[in-house]
Amino acid sequence: MSVGERIERTLLASFEASRGPSCPPRLDEAVRYAIFPGGARLRPTICLAVAEACGDDRPEVSNAAAAAIELLHCASLVHDDLPCFDDSPLRRGRPSVHRAFGERLAVLTGDALIVLAFSALTRGARQAPERLAGLVEIVAASVGMPRGIAAGQAWECEPTVNLSDYQQLKTGALFAAATAAGAAAAGKNPEPWRALGEQIGSAYQVVDDILDVTGDSEQLGKPIGQDEARGHPSSVREMGLDGARRHFESVMAGVFDMIPPCPGSERLKQRIAKESSKFLPSALAEHAA
Amino acid sequence: MSVGERIERTLLASFEASRGPSCPPRLDEAVRYAIFPGGARLRPTICLAVAEACGDDRPEVSNAAAAAIELLHCASLVHDDLPCFDDSPLRRGRPSVHRAFGERLAVLTGDALIVLAFSALTRGARQAPERLAGLVEIVAASVGMPRGIAAGQAWECEPTVNLSDYQQLKTGALFAAATAAGAAAAGKNPEPWRALGEQIGSAYQVVDDILDVTGDSEQLGKPIGQDEARGHPSSVREMGLDGARRHFESVMAGVFDMIPPCPGSERLKQRIAKESSKFLPSALAEHAA
Repeated sequence: MSVGERIERTLLASFEASRGPSCPPRLDEAVRYAIFPGGARLRPTICLAVAEACGDDRPEVSNAAAAAIELLHCASLVHDDLPCFDDSPLRRGRPSVHRAFGERLAVLTGDALIVLAFSALTRGARQAPERLAGLVEIVAASVGMPRGIAAGQAWECEPTVNLSDYQQLKTGALFAAATAAGAAAAGKNPEPWRALGEQIGSAYQVVDDILDVTGDSEQLGKPIGQDEARGHPSSVREMGLDGARRHFESVMAGVFDMIPPCPGSERLKQRIAKESSKFLPSALAEHAA
Repeated sequence: MSVGERIERTLLASFEASRGPSCPPRLDEAVRYAIFPGGARLRPTICLAVAEACGDDRPEVSNAAAAAIELLHCASLVHDDLPCFDDSPLRRGRPSVHRAFGERLAVLTGDALIVLAFSALTRGARQAPERLAGLVEIVAASVGMPRGIAAGQAWECEPTVNLSDYQQLKTGALFAAATAAGAAAAGKNPEPWRALGEQIGSAYQVVDDILDVTGDSEQLGKPIGQDEARGHPSSVREMGLDGARRHFESVMAGVFDMIPPCPGSERLKQRIAKESSKFLPSALAEHAA
C-alpha cells in the first residue's frame, strides 16, 4: 500500500470511528469537509517516510501518528480561518469551514478535530502502550503551549514578535512532530529527528510567505496578500522578496544533512526531495524569471 | 492530602509544565485565568471520590485523570462563552476570557486547554502505560464526537433537538467520564461506573436550568435568563419550573442506587451527598418557598 493510501485510509477510519447517530448531522458533515479532500498531506507523508526509514515495525502505530498530525493540521486551518483571525473565505479551493457551515460549527469542528487526533493516535497505538505516552507527548507539544501551534498563533496577539520564533511555533513545530513521531512510532529515539522536521518546516514557511506575494489564489486554493494585509510576520516582509528566496535556498541546502543515521536514509532523501518538489516549483520558477 | 488539594496541586503542576519563555505572555495569562481560581471543581472531585472508592492504588494516575477532566471543562466554558455562542460577559464572577483577553486569545485558550488536558493525563499516567490508552479514550469520548461536549454544543446549531440527548452530551458526558476515569485510573473496569456519572450530570443540569430562571447572577457568577434568551433546550422550557423540580427530585432519588459494588461505597455515598449539596441548596430553597 502506498504512503498516500495509508494516510487516506487511516484518516477515513478515524473519522468513521467518530461518527454515530447521536452526533449532530451538520457537525459530522463539517468535520468530514475539513478533512476530505485534503491538501498535499505533506506532514503525514513525512511522518510515514521517517517511520519507514526507521524500520516501521508497527505500521498501525505510524499510521495513527501520521493521521493524528494531519487532523491537528486540519484543526489549525479551521480555527486560523475564523473571522477573528484571518477571516479567510477560501481554503483548499472552496469555502472555508466557517463560510460553509457558520462560525459556531467552525469553532466546534476545530475542537472536535483536536480531540479526534488524540483518539486516533490512541486507537492505533493501543497495542503498543510502551510507545503511546511518548507519541501523545510529541503530538501535544506541537500544538499546545508553550511551543506549539496555539502558542505560535497567539504571538499574533502580542505587540512585538520575533519572526523566527513565530514561524518555528506556528509551522515548524508540527513538522518537527511529524519527523519525531515517525521515529517514535517505529520504536526509535525521536529526539535526533526533530531538527530535520524543523528545517523542512522552515523551508515550507518561507515558500508559503513567498507565494503569499507571488502566487496565484486559484492555484493555491486560498487568498493571497494576507500577510501584508493582516500585518503578519513574514519572511518577505522582513527580508524582501529576494532576501526570502536566498533564505529559502540556504534552508533547503541544509535539509539533507539533517537526516540522522538510519537504515533507510538514502530512500528518505529521495522522498523528501519528491515531497519538497510539491511546494518548490512555483517559488523557483518565479526566481528564474 | 485532601481531594481539593490534590486537584489544585495537579492543575497547577500541569499548568506550570505548559509554560516557557517561548510562550506568548498573554496566552500564558489567559490560560491561567481560565483555570484559576476555579468553580466548585465538581467533576474532578467526583473522579477522585470514585478512584478512592476503587482503592486508588496509583494516585498520580487518578490525579492526572481528574485534572484532565477539569481542564476540558474549563476549555468548554471558554469556547461556550464566545461571542458566536453565548457571548457571555461573565464567568465565575468576573469577565469571561474573551471579554478580558479578546476573542482570538479565547479561541486559542480553549484549544490550548484541550491539548493541555491530554498532556496532563499522559504525564501522570506515563508510569502506568497499561491504563493510559483506556483513560485517553474515556476522556476524548466525553468531549469529542459523536457523544461528547462538542457534539452536544453542535446540537444548538440544528433546527430540532431532543432535550435528553442534548443534556446527556453537553453535560452528562463529562460527568460520566469523571466516574469512569476514576475507576479506570484505579485499575478497575470503568463501564459499570458510567451510569452513576450520567445520573449526577442529569441532576446537575436540571439544577443549572432551574437556576438560570430562579437564580441570582451575582451569586452564580454568570448571567441568568440565557436559556430563554438564546432559545437553548432547557428542562424548565420543556417541563415548566415545577416539572423541572419534580424531574430533579426523581433524578436525585436514583443516584445512590447507581453506585456499583466497591470497597468504599459507603464513604462514596457520603461524598456524593456532600458534593451535591453544593448545587442543591438554592434550588431546594426556592422549592420550599
